[in-house]
Amino acid sequence: MFYVIGLGLCDEKDITVRGLEAVKSSTRVYLEAYTSILMVQKERLEEFYGKELILADRDMVEMSSDEILKDADKEDISLLVVGDPFGATTHTDIILRARALKIPTRVVHNASIMNAVGACGLQLYNFGQAVSLVFFTESWKPDSFYDRIKENSDLGMHTLVLLDIKVKEQSEENLIRGRKIYEPPRYMSIPTAVSQLQEVETSRGDGVLSPDKTLAIAMSRVGAHTDGEQRIVCGTLAELGTQDPSVFGEPLHSLVIVGKRLHHLECEFAEEFAVDRKSWRDIARDVYGCTLE
Amino acid sequence: MFYVIGLGLCDEKDITVRGLEAVKSSTRVYLEAYTSILMVQKERLEEFYGKELILADRDMVEMSSDEILKDADKEDISLLVVGDPFGATTHTDIILRARALKIPTRVVHNASIMNAVGACGLQLYNFGQAVSLVFFTESWKPDSFYDRIKENSDLGMHTLVLLDIKVKEQSEENLIRGRKIYEPPRYMSIPTAVSQLQEVETSRGDGVLSPDKTLAIAMSRVGAHTDGEQRIVCGTLAELGTQDPSVFGEPLHSLVIVGKRLHHLECEFAEEFAVDRKSWRDIARDVYGCTLE
Repeated sequence: MFYVIGLGLCDEKDITVRGLEAVKSSTRVYLEAYTSILMVQKERLEEFYGKELILADRDMVEMSSDEILKDADKEDISLLVVGDPFGATTHTDIILRARALKIPTRVVHNASIMNAVGACGLQLYNFGQAVSLVFFTESWKPDSFYDRIKENSDLGMHTLVLLDIKVKEQSEENLIRGRKIYEPPRYMSIPTAVSQLQEVETSRGDGVLSPDKTLAIAMSRVGAHTDGEQRIVCGTLAELGTQDPSVFGEPLHSLVIVGKRLHHLECEFAEEFAVDRKSWRDIARDVYGCTLE
Repeated sequence: MFYVIGLGLCDEKDITVRGLEAVKSSTRVYLEAYTSILMVQKERLEEFYGKELILADRDMVEMSSDEILKDADKEDISLLVVGDPFGATTHTDIILRARALKIPTRVVHNASIMNAVGACGLQLYNFGQAVSLVFFTESWKPDSFYDRIKENSDLGMHTLVLLDIKVKEQSEENLIRGRKIYEPPRYMSIPTAVSQLQEVETSRGDGVLSPDKTLAIAMSRVGAHTDGEQRIVCGTLAELGTQDPSVFGEPLHSLVIVGKRLHHLECEFAEEFAVDRKSWRDIARDVYGCTLE
């Protein structure tokens, strides 16, 4: 059996009991090497699971899937992934490959940011499509996410914005010279995200994102179990963009753009986390037409 | 500490290791009484968790939250909910109440249909807002979901349609007489859902849902661990509407309306589950402009 097991959001104990059983029954256990987006190290996972883990980066999962799948028709083999297995096309690919090889596959689901975002108090059924925001460079500023946010915004829906992470990136020089030397991981901060959003708003000018009238919710380490490690911070884009980055806690960060269908219960829940409660209430009332009782 | 713990989708082993630890440390453990939407009975959960569970229906969670929260400032109290804790406003309410009482709260996330729907092969970021479809009666046929599907459809996005369940419903007579006698639970089947969708399309007539040109994916018991228990069945609305209900397996069922942004990898993944593979491919190509390699 080939198991694809979601690890959930944070640490070694977020695996489900069923997932843990599958890990223990497996002769080989691969860990998709986005470990830096889990909040713990490989060694801690190994100790808790009582298994050695084989690191598999995305290239390996994509290019060497047959190596991972070897003998999975006779033995249990597990691939561990952060969040839920269906968060990334890479996993769809390897499941398709297993299917082609007639290897039985089982998926063990878990929480991912796509549903845990509900922790900010906004209802999941009020979210439109999610978007990704990548690090801009001097010459590369992809902005199709803006159209998606506009589509959601026109319908009054919230948008989950997933912020870029750069893991296992090579510098241009190392890339050219073929040196497998990797830069330290980089995670987009909330102020950087806000600044990029505002840059695109300025160039596109459709009035989708207003510094002083668009409410947003910054989230970090959703589902973390240590006091104060999970952070939720709400405010206008301008308020969030000018906070000291330490306010938002450690990465990973995500950002939610609040849609106009904001319900007063959503508003009330999030208010607890507002940079400035009065400003949050005033804008919810004046711009969003949402009055707290 | 007040814990709100997601149980995930299926059975007693879908709880996370962290969730199980919280259950074991708790002096009282409430189970939100939608047990009939889990695939196992309360007794099996109790045996596995080694704890007696107190059933709490939604009324109790809403009306008697202080009873549930009693002593949670001094002891660990857990509330177990199917899926993820932020799937329903009820849980937002009780968390707000705990906050007002200054009771520390911790949420243990888990998979819910909102992210596990990815098991059908459609990418989560291509989904728009989710909708609910309730059982129609002679006099009550709420159809606002149609506007939501149209909004998603106009943007090419997929729609997750959650099908109604009737749990702890009283007959009109028992309701009038104040008799707490409840009807057996009812779960909307895929053919009923398709029939209701078509009824609304006929009355509204915006051409959002075509029997022969709209592709859809029926899912049941997503994340089930027994062979063949999870079912995914794809086809046109007409194809799904005319299958024998047994094809779709046991409840709970969900339905996905496929949006026009269908990607060929999504299409290829789902094809495995098509009622008629040729029809699936032909419509994906001719109507959705999606050609499989």
